[in-house]
Amino acid sequence: MTAKRRHDRRPTFAVLGAGHGGLAMAGHLAIEGFPTRIWNRSAERVEKVNDRGGIDIEGEVEGFGRVELATDDIGEALDGADVVMVVVPAHGHKEVAERCAQHLKPNQVVVLNPGRTFGALEFVHVLHEEGVKRMPVVAEAQTFIYVSRHSEFAQARILQIKNSVPVAAIPAHKTPVVLDAIRPAFPQFVAATNVLETSLDNIGATFHPSVTLMNAARIESTHGDFEYYLEGVSPSTARILEAADAERVAVGAALGIHLHSAREWLYLAYDSPGRTLYDAIEGTPGYKGVRAPATLNHRYILEDVPMSLVPMISVGRQIGVKTPTLEALTHLASMLHQRDFWAEGRTVEKLGIAGKSVKDIRMLALRGYSR
Amino acid sequence: MTAKRRHDRRPTFAVLGAGHGGLAMAGHLAIEGFPTRIWNRSAERVEKVNDRGGIDIEGEVEGFGRVELATDDIGEALDGADVVMVVVPAHGHKEVAERCAQHLKPNQVVVLNPGRTFGALEFVHVLHEEGVKRMPVVAEAQTFIYVSRHSEFAQARILQIKNSVPVAAIPAHKTPVVLDAIRPAFPQFVAATNVLETSLDNIGATFHPSVTLMNAARIESTHGDFEYYLEGVSPSTARILEAADAERVAVGAALGIHLHSAREWLYLAYDSPGRTLYDAIEGTPGYKGVRAPATLNHRYILEDVPMSLVPMISVGRQIGVKTPTLEALTHLASMLHQRDFWAEGRTVEKLGIAGKSVKDIRMLALRGYSR
Repeated sequence: MTAKRRHDRRPTFAVLGAGHGGLAMAGHLAIEGFPTRIWNRSAERVEKVNDRGGIDIEGEVEGFGRVELATDDIGEALDGADVVMVVVPAHGHKEVAERCAQHLKPNQVVVLNPGRTFGALEFVHVLHEEGVKRMPVVAEAQTFIYVSRHSEFAQARILQIKNSVPVAAIPAHKTPVVLDAIRPAFPQFVAATNVLETSLDNIGATFHPSVTLMNAARIESTHGDFEYYLEGVSPSTARILEAADAERVAVGAALGIHLHSAREWLYLAYDSPGRTLYDAIEGTPGYKGVRAPATLNHRYILEDVPMSLVPMISVGRQIGVKTPTLEALTHLASMLHQRDFWAEGRTVEKLGIAGKSVKDIRMLALRGYSR
Repeated sequence: MTAKRRHDRRPTFAVLGAGHGGLAMAGHLAIEGFPTRIWNRSAERVEKVNDRGGIDIEGEVEGFGRVELATDDIGEALDGADVVMVVVPAHGHKEVAERCAQHLKPNQVVVLNPGRTFGALEFVHVLHEEGVKRMPVVAEAQTFIYVSRHSEFAQARILQIKNSVPVAAIPAHKTPVVLDAIRPAFPQFVAATNVLETSLDNIGATFHPSVTLMNAARIESTHGDFEYYLEGVSPSTARILEAADAERVAVGAALGIHLHSAREWLYLAYDSPGRTLYDAIEGTPGYKGVRAPATLNHRYILEDVPMSLVPMISVGRQIGVKTPTLEALTHLASMLHQRDFWAEGRTVEKLGIAGKSVKDIRMLALRGYSR
């Protein structure tokens, strides 16, 4: 981290969310000397941080980060913050947006870490619905910068810091403003074209539900005791992954975004060759040692289905892209968990884009609600 | 077996199909002294039977059954036969019907062993399309009477003979005629209400594709080295089975047929108690030791999807029954095998019931094309 580049003072961060991700980020920022506040909806988690006066971080970063403030009062956390880092599961974005609406200032920068699919679009829609006239800049990261684990309250383990995290803002021309604001702390953030790209350029969105569902019984009967990718993906099930992924790419193409297919992405990211997706997965060293989740109550279903598959399907239906594989996975996940992930998920209605044309969706993603 | 009950002479059987099932049936019939012919589309299989002069049977039945005739000429096999036992996979029924059409006599009885879903309806539709005016009686068994394995050409192993096999004819009032004809050889056959019942009262139709797909990667990466039901069905995946099975029951109800749910069926068949389907499966002794198929190229997908799920979905759509789980399974199976099981499958068009009301479908199932 390098601070004070273009800023006279170090930016003040408000981290919203005190799960393992929020604790890791707030602790890391505080260790690096950035004025840091942390907010959580439930008082219990922030009290532990207050008791300790900060957050202990282990792993790639080691130390104690003393925070300015740990609070369950979101207005207090936001007051005077330069950058608002939202680090909650995607189904929490809507509530965070509602709670922030009356407090956010137009000079503040909000970053969803990550947005999952269309998180920034949903966030600005909620602010708009809440009557916010002078919008802050709302951005979304394509992925979460850390691989982190929660150990105890007021403590987190950072297993890995990713070295390149695409980010895009609404409006898109403000992406450089976001980068300027967060680069003192996170030089790893790089500009993406726009939020349609950060939302859709994510093979996990289709991989996670596919691999988890195609191994549902095995996960439950072995408590995840197998290699998630190397045993959990077989030549035939790889074709289901490939079909699901092709639908993601097709939705992107219809929105005017060129996305890499999963196979291309593995080649670019890991030099994994292979004529088929199965070969590419087998040849991906990073997948070795990745174990299956121990339970089906996991974000690979609970978050990725309603917050990634559902918005892809819903947008696809509106703009004429068929997504039968994503629909099949969503239905089976709903039966599996006896929940209606469609009703819970980010449909076009919840994103505020119901009935809009491709052109209008692009305009909203590029310009937001500002005039 | 008891012969010569109401018949002066033992009925002559033509067994169509020389896979393990056809060999088992023809061999068994011949051992019991019934005049038996066996037909197969490819000459190779019947030549082996001709070379040997008959079929060796091992297992529950032991002996050598000398056949009258082993031929690839279907007219020759049918000529003078009283009962035509069709023992081919369900996707072969159409071709068998086409080949039989010009040879079948109205006093002959055809039995599909088994019909899978709507096999008899398809068979009479094909005969009708082929211009047959004076229809034979066409019946379908709900299940195949043997659990058998193929060992070599001209040889089969009978692992089990089931003790009750429901059968129904088109027209339904001819079911007793079918029973009279086959009972000398097979007292295990019992009357079902009609072919809608024999077609739909089959939990395997929904269990096999569900369990296989929800364990697809495990089957392929372990070559089926796990307990198919006891490990392959977990509490959550049992809910997918239950959802799929409920759609089967709903299609039946809309057609005026009361079917038992899978959970009820396990209770009736095995005294398996349990408030949930998962508990009932866990408590079913017959499932212990049933291993998973070694490959996904298995009739649990290749036959049950196009020949059972597709007709249920297709009929459901026509008569207003939603089958989203069966559709999801069919789509994923198609992606898995890179085949269009919908196009291959028994849709209402292929069954000759496209556009027909529930009343007209029932009339066809009960009365056939006879006037």
